[in-house]
Amino acid sequence: MITIIAKCTAKKEFVDDLLELALELVQFSRKEEGNVSYDFYQDITFPEKFTFIECWKDSAAIDSHNATPHFNHFVEKTGRIFAGPLDVALFRKLT
Amino acid sequence: MITIIAKCTAKKEFVDDLLELALELVQFSRKEEGNVSYDFYQDITFPEKFTFIECWKDSAAIDSHNATPHFNHFVEKTGRIFAGPLDVALFRKLT
Repeated sequence: MITIIAKCTAKKEFVDDLLELALELVQFSRKEEGNVSYDFYQDITFPEKFTFIECWKDSAAIDSHNATPHFNHFVEKTGRIFAGPLDVALFRKLT
Repeated sequence: MITIIAKCTAKKEFVDDLLELALELVQFSRKEEGNVSYDFYQDITFPEKFTFIECWKDSAAIDSHNATPHFNHFVEKTGRIFAGPLDVALFRKLT
């Protein structure tokens, strides 16, 4: 099992667009065979900052996710929406 | 419900000490009345980097947690263990 924590920041004028794209991405991603959970969070203090917390069965499931049309649609559409690069890190759960 | 994502980095020689302190903190924190979940993750690429993902009923539960002996013991003992400041952010779950 691998947990991805992916942080992103939207340009302030595109917060609603990011919300729409992210909620669509969550719905499609949860249906993938290798997905365990896929959630989306908004920073309480800085509402333009968001974090995905995703749990995947293994690295093959992540490779498969990265090749899906819905993930690539999200990457393509968020190009002008993000204020900086997506910050992605992979974790193993210790507890 | 409030989710805390707290990132920390241990000095390399103190990774095992941090693990011990963190696992103890997790056990005590999960028993708090206002806690929903409390987990601890290790970065797969940089094993000295860790993240807590904590879910709390409300901000009063977080205030109460921050005043507990086990949390303050962790803060005190990690002073010389962390390579930098604890990076704490509060989120609301959107999905």
